[in-house]
Amino acid sequence: MKVALLAHEKFPGRAKTAIGVLRYADYDVEAVIDRNNDGSRVHDHVADVQDAPIVASMADVTDDVDALVIGIAPIGGGFDESWRPDVRNALERGCDVYSGLHYFLEDDEEFASLAVEHGCELWDVRKPPTDVGVADGVADSVDATVVATVGTDCSVGKMTATRELYEHAREEGLDAAFVATGQTGILIEGDGIPVDRVVSDFAAGAVERMVLEAGADHDYVFVEGQASLVHPGYSGVTASIVHGAMPDQLVLCHEHGRDSVHGYDQALPPVATFVDRYEAFAEPVADAEVVGGMLNTRGVESDAVAREAIADFADVIDAPADDPVRFGPDSVLEVIR
Amino acid sequence: MKVALLAHEKFPGRAKTAIGVLRYADYDVEAVIDRNNDGSRVHDHVADVQDAPIVASMADVTDDVDALVIGIAPIGGGFDESWRPDVRNALERGCDVYSGLHYFLEDDEEFASLAVEHGCELWDVRKPPTDVGVADGVADSVDATVVATVGTDCSVGKMTATRELYEHAREEGLDAAFVATGQTGILIEGDGIPVDRVVSDFAAGAVERMVLEAGADHDYVFVEGQASLVHPGYSGVTASIVHGAMPDQLVLCHEHGRDSVHGYDQALPPVATFVDRYEAFAEPVADAEVVGGMLNTRGVESDAVAREAIADFADVIDAPADDPVRFGPDSVLEVIR
Repeated sequence: MKVALLAHEKFPGRAKTAIGVLRYADYDVEAVIDRNNDGSRVHDHVADVQDAPIVASMADVTDDVDALVIGIAPIGGGFDESWRPDVRNALERGCDVYSGLHYFLEDDEEFASLAVEHGCELWDVRKPPTDVGVADGVADSVDATVVATVGTDCSVGKMTATRELYEHAREEGLDAAFVATGQTGILIEGDGIPVDRVVSDFAAGAVERMVLEAGADHDYVFVEGQASLVHPGYSGVTASIVHGAMPDQLVLCHEHGRDSVHGYDQALPPVATFVDRYEAFAEPVADAEVVGGMLNTRGVESDAVAREAIADFADVIDAPADDPVRFGPDSVLEVIR
Repeated sequence: MKVALLAHEKFPGRAKTAIGVLRYADYDVEAVIDRNNDGSRVHDHVADVQDAPIVASMADVTDDVDALVIGIAPIGGGFDESWRPDVRNALERGCDVYSGLHYFLEDDEEFASLAVEHGCELWDVRKPPTDVGVADGVADSVDATVVATVGTDCSVGKMTATRELYEHAREEGLDAAFVATGQTGILIEGDGIPVDRVVSDFAAGAVERMVLEAGADHDYVFVEGQASLVHPGYSGVTASIVHGAMPDQLVLCHEHGRDSVHGYDQALPPVATFVDRYEAFAEPVADAEVVGGMLNTRGVESDAVAREAIADFADVIDAPADDPVRFGPDSVLEVIR
């Protein structure tokens, strides 16, 4: 399937959905739309994902595409009105539109009527199922090994780490499943529940349901974590995932150099404390151990410096660590097996 | 205002909304409806609340009442079809219906059309406002002293403890506000946001908004806690309240003798550990200290034994403790002032 990826003014640093789709999804990305990077190519900015031209608007996407994917997820998940002409153009051309925003395109009168008129699908990835209930506290009843990623902050690489572990596990012949809990993971996997959009009473229940389903059919279940237990806005989402999944193992994700909560005037506690934080938080519900760490070293130029940073991180958390994008997730996968 | 309180098969032990309304709300309760306790009176079961006859159905409520209040909050918040004749009868008599269920009466076709036909209001207390956003992490900017209740489990008395602290503070002339975060508190206060019903990304934001509003006008803000940080289903709600409110002080609530999570096959950790659990969880976001404890001794017959249990609890948490219903909240209020 051919898609265009909308990422105005955010590519690549603040366009994690777009990067995730470029790296992992089964789509052919024909173009990235970012008015600030018009004329360059994806590979001018990011090396290790599929390449595509960057254009200023959907009207500039000359190839036939099947869908426009909104590849940005701003804090709050609102719709930026400056994107309206792009979505309108897509629908008028008969393209479906996929969105992970809290703002539902289906509920937008203009988009809804254009979609009907042109026979297009609006997929609001972040709309959860309506039949999710309270967690029963039984996710640990599955025979599968359940591994959840957790993090020191938002946007440190939890989805990426989870996806790399899952893909490498499958490449090694393990029967692994990927449980998507956020918009990017769901867009890539084509399935999942956006836990951050579930009402808070049922958020753990949504995770439990996915783990029970995946765990019934697979030997390893990799659960995509969200946010952080120390995040002033989103810690409830994190809590619901850790308790809802009742994981056997945790993988701690961090971005090298990150020392405050992104977008907030709040220092991050020392990285070493997160091992205890997560294990102590999980413990009354699940006996989960931090078995490895994933360090995002995208801000580091040299591979040698990155390796050193990863070694330091492994030392601090007293467990094997990798940068799954830069060097692969093998040493962490090793301890999970 | 005169109300009837629906509490079928749950009164009094599992009807915490009904008990809260009987104890604190500004309503005259004309009857409690519980088919299992038909013919008895409230005071036959609970002493320290307003009295009322208990009848089998809304049809048996002979007095004129202005509203029927659903006084039960089952796990999951569903509507029990056996209650339908009572709600129907109320609407046909021109009574409003107040409900704290997750199931919205407004979305029930029969109730919605009966309400229109008879000019009644359906108040779905648990429907949150649609304009709540992500927390900015700024609740600590208020000058007020913010006190949040936290607990070892659901239904241990957090709403009651909060309400008692608030009412006693006002009786002592302090300028105090009550922030209602759950259906019972909202029914009593007539205002508030049901945090457990807010989508999890915005749950802390909802609490923050209420604290900022209350803190702008008052010297003390008492925030009603929910659930528990160790609850397998609801810990995300608790997390959102503790981080969203950024409290200065925490009051730990527990029920005497409770040693497992209500309705779950999960032991509660030792009570002493909760002081550290809550303080450590709060710490990256708010420097909150457990300054007192509230012990619910409703299961204890003798006042002397209750006093002993409270003294033991105070010892375990190393802070003053009360049973706010049995003996009042004064020793805890003392340390808050």
